Amino acid sequence: MRRKARQASKPENRPRFWGRHAVSAVLANPERVVHRIWATRDSAAEFDIPKQVPVIFAEAADLARHVPRDAPHQGIVAEVDRLEDIMLAELLDQAEDGRPLLVLDQVTDPHNVGAILRSAAAFDALGIVTQDRHSPPESGALAKAASGALEIVPWARVVNLARALDEIAEAGFWRVGLTGESETTLADALGTPRIALVLGAEGEGMRQNTEAHCDALARLPIGERMESLNVSNAAAVALYAARVASA
Amino acid sequence: MRRKARQASKPENRPRFWGRHAVSAVLANPERVVHRIWATRDSAAEFDIPKQVPVIFAEAADLARHVPRDAPHQGIVAEVDRLEDIMLAELLDQAEDGRPLLVLDQVTDPHNVGAILRSAAAFDALGIVTQDRHSPPESGALAKAASGALEIVPWARVVNLARALDEIAEAGFWRVGLTGESETTLADALGTPRIALVLGAEGEGMRQNTEAHCDALARLPIGERMESLNVSNAAAVALYAARVASA
Repeated sequence: MRRKARQASKPENRPRFWGRHAVSAVLANPERVVHRIWATRDSAAEFDIPKQVPVIFAEAADLARHVPRDAPHQGIVAEVDRLEDIMLAELLDQAEDGRPLLVLDQVTDPHNVGAILRSAAAFDALGIVTQDRHSPPESGALAKAASGALEIVPWARVVNLARALDEIAEAGFWRVGLTGESETTLADALGTPRIALVLGAEGEGMRQNTEAHCDALARLPIGERMESLNVSNAAAVALYAARVASA
Repeated sequence: MRRKARQASKPENRPRFWGRHAVSAVLANPERVVHRIWATRDSAAEFDIPKQVPVIFAEAADLARHVPRDAPHQGIVAEVDRLEDIMLAELLDQAEDGRPLLVLDQVTDPHNVGAILRSAAAFDALGIVTQDRHSPPESGALAKAASGALEIVPWARVVNLARALDEIAEAGFWRVGLTGESETTLADALGTPRIALVLGAEGEGMRQNTEAHCDALARLPIGERMESLNVSNAAAVALYAARVASA
């Protein structure tokens, strides 16, 4: 997939990923530049680390200094470059019936976006689309929550989400926006072979202009005791429902 | 619901809950003892705080000293007693067709258990069951992730999970254990009016003895690119599937 050119990273701006799943996915991704690895000798032995990547051996306690406080590094930390951006048009060129697209409007929490990437990979989504200014950068916490999915799920960051939703419609997707305020349940809004699931931030929900660019609005079948699910839980349920509807 | 007697709490052992949803749910729960509240004047004005609860006014920056680093307290912190334990037998006495029960085997992450409580409330689950020794205590992080659901979802902590699963079966529940190793998909394993969904920890999965106490094992319909979902995402999908199957 073609990606926008990006300048060489400065060491101080490079994210550090930690945890076994995140780091082994990084090493398996030919598009990911890995600058160096800190690891315990035991952990390093479990990975297939290319010869050109410098490995700095350390005790587990010392590894903690390379990651945020309390980060569960599991004995391995990788300093990487962020992936180059994917163009929405290129992502849409790969559209296939039965593979949903996820569109996130201002979902900023890295743990949620990471878990959403993981569910997107699990349910074989085409990719995710976010607005560049209102989405988290790649980070260790995001990569850990994604459990390797950051390396395999195409992620298009766009400047204008409304315009992106127009392009998505032109590519044949039926855009279903999730909101507790709709009377239609999600299962009733599905049924077309190409579905784009649009989710807003918790609390705020989708912005009005985002809702206006959906073909249908739908709600999850939840009771009155809770207003909403956690956004990554809502995304997982929506992806499952889309999968079941297209099966 | 009858609860086991519990001794008076020592101040240093009392959990502190923060965030608007968690604290307003605490104040609305007649079974929850609230010892005191720290709040900004603006935040305090938004809550209906009973007269007998001492309120200590503080600036937002000072509130941060009462909660863990970077905890998003949203201007209000409550020092509370943990809820008294609920007996499994009492929970099962309230069983109703169409309301699933969630059983968690060694799910220890408080954010995950909190998000699971939130989904359990949203999908009107009967309650959750965990093994006392291998489940997180009530805490601020758990209550925040639960977004108020900790106050409304009955949570039975049992000594022996295998024995609890026997009792659950005697109460007429069909026990479905989620594991990626089953050939049966979840939708095919559902269909009885009373379902107990059994989930293990991420990575480890259910313990063998827990699996042996299920009536059926089933998998989520996920592709080969990911081994599993985040456990709270898996629970949300399972609760949704159970809801759809019983509708």
